[in-house]
Amino acid sequence: MATSGTETINCWASYAKEEDLKPFQYTPRPLGENDVDIKISHCGICGSDLHTMDSEWAGTKYPVVTGHEIIGTVTAKGNKVSHLNLGDVVGVGAQVYACHKPTCGPCSRGYDAHCPHGVYTYNGKYEDGATSYGGYSERVLVDSNYAFKIPENIDHAEAAPLMCAGTTVFNPMLTHKFKKGDRVGVVGIGGLGHLAIQFASKLGCEVSAFSRSDSKKDEALKLGAHKYVNTSDPAQLEAAKGSLDFLIVTSSSSTNNYETFGSWVDFNGKIILLALPPANLELSPFFFVSKEVYIGGSLIGGIKVIKETLEFASKHNIRPVIERLPMTKVNEGVNRVRDGSVRYRVVLEN
Amino acid sequence: MATSGTETINCWASYAKEEDLKPFQYTPRPLGENDVDIKISHCGICGSDLHTMDSEWAGTKYPVVTGHEIIGTVTAKGNKVSHLNLGDVVGVGAQVYACHKPTCGPCSRGYDAHCPHGVYTYNGKYEDGATSYGGYSERVLVDSNYAFKIPENIDHAEAAPLMCAGTTVFNPMLTHKFKKGDRVGVVGIGGLGHLAIQFASKLGCEVSAFSRSDSKKDEALKLGAHKYVNTSDPAQLEAAKGSLDFLIVTSSSSTNNYETFGSWVDFNGKIILLALPPANLELSPFFFVSKEVYIGGSLIGGIKVIKETLEFASKHNIRPVIERLPMTKVNEGVNRVRDGSVRYRVVLEN
Repeated sequence: MATSGTETINCWASYAKEEDLKPFQYTPRPLGENDVDIKISHCGICGSDLHTMDSEWAGTKYPVVTGHEIIGTVTAKGNKVSHLNLGDVVGVGAQVYACHKPTCGPCSRGYDAHCPHGVYTYNGKYEDGATSYGGYSERVLVDSNYAFKIPENIDHAEAAPLMCAGTTVFNPMLTHKFKKGDRVGVVGIGGLGHLAIQFASKLGCEVSAFSRSDSKKDEALKLGAHKYVNTSDPAQLEAAKGSLDFLIVTSSSSTNNYETFGSWVDFNGKIILLALPPANLELSPFFFVSKEVYIGGSLIGGIKVIKETLEFASKHNIRPVIERLPMTKVNEGVNRVRDGSVRYRVVLEN
Repeated sequence: MATSGTETINCWASYAKEEDLKPFQYTPRPLGENDVDIKISHCGICGSDLHTMDSEWAGTKYPVVTGHEIIGTVTAKGNKVSHLNLGDVVGVGAQVYACHKPTCGPCSRGYDAHCPHGVYTYNGKYEDGATSYGGYSERVLVDSNYAFKIPENIDHAEAAPLMCAGTTVFNPMLTHKFKKGDRVGVVGIGGLGHLAIQFASKLGCEVSAFSRSDSKKDEALKLGAHKYVNTSDPAQLEAAKGSLDFLIVTSSSSTNNYETFGSWVDFNGKIILLALPPANLELSPFFFVSKEVYIGGSLIGGIKVIKETLEFASKHNIRPVIERLPMTKVNEGVNRVRDGSVRYRVVLEN
């Protein structure tokens, strides 16, 4: 089997919105001096994969090979790659390239996730015009800066969701310096949310899980939530008012009411969006200004954040709850994410 | 002339939207044990006064006596008032009462500006149903917690705008711990903006003033701005991209483009709204999330902030630029604020 450079890669691609994925082949670039070629063992299915394959965000170019929670083994490396060896088990997240030039404003300040030359793991474009293809695949070739050694105590399938979901939820906790005693709410107990509960809890925060029914209550508490708020119960909604320093929103539901979310946040609190709603937010300025509540969010994390995410998860025994499926059942996996029935992440296995 | 308690107070009131103010009289409550009666010497005209008298915000009850940048002399005090003496020159800002009970969540944590029993200086309602009337007046009777001694080195007329405009711009600088070297933008070089430039500059920040023409350039630089961005010039707009850590928005113009504002802010920067736009904000979540920009704001400051504002202004020689008018010319003053011609604050004098 081909393990390096320009030999054809077999993968699964979406060819049109809401259609089943079908086999696809492409030929990667020759292995560059900073590249690694990775034989993929696992790939998680992230909500972003569906947004992209269903053209919910602008710019999907079909065929698109999604998947950016990749775990695999290094099978070849360029001659300038010193931090990885053949046989290393590595993870790849949502980004596969940034320029890292000293003249690059974002890269030089540690904001490599915002590099103007950055390339996302799939549906991205390299400067030479080549398209990036993701992890629903047998192999992937990436810049070695974006291949991260997986700590030995983490199961490879369970490591996959840490690469995107884990990093995405841990990133704002680092930015805003979440600390012991901070009151943290999590809306959307799914792929991201069930990890946000764990990370915040292990940081010593008081974690409240918000969900529209009691169906996830036991699990949320088991994952480390201290409180559970059933948002269908007006009394619980009322009691939640002003109870949080931070609210992490991992749900992109069009029924989300951001003013209600704001009511749960205390003065000077922050609403952190980690999922992108399909439409613009309409916010009453009076509401936010009068309570000094800030709303923003983030997407992925750069190199430093990914490393800290893996290290923290390894040390504090944070593990995603996953359902394993063979890569050949990718369409079944996608459909389980699409209908919301997965608890809490599908990981495809080669 | 009456100086205390229940004798009638002569003032100027709005009786309907966009109409001239006319004389009005009311009888205040008897002087309470925590109250002070203040003979007003000066009152600034704030943008909020116009929003209120023109019913741009919900809830204006006519007749309304606006004015919450009040300076005057204590002429009577209740028997529990120990921190003020008769003859003291004091200022009153946008708030005249908070409960300050140990059982009050906001008050007990220093958020007295958010006390659920708080009363704004005008168009507010006390718990007994009495209406609060503001500073376009000969006198005002307030809870002494909200009467602040004016530092001796500040001219009384110039002190007036510090009570609302000054406090409002300094409040987020304290909340977000603005420090030397922070890159701070100010949109709207008016009553609030010209003070924001001074406060941020004296905190050691790198200040950029944003305005739609060059007409305020010389003055902005003289006030302490290091850069001036004429937002009608596309080249200057482009150069401003990502140049700020904080953007203070003091303009509530309906033509404000908050996504453009966001483009001036660097990763993890904050947009701080200090003026309330007349309509809801519509924000693309992608834009904010992808740059990790947060948007929020604040209104007034509580007791601690007002004290710190006066102290900092006194120490660093921060003074509003004002136009003085006799109180009897209140309508001329209001019209100068309404048509935007004032530089930068009208202060009415008795």
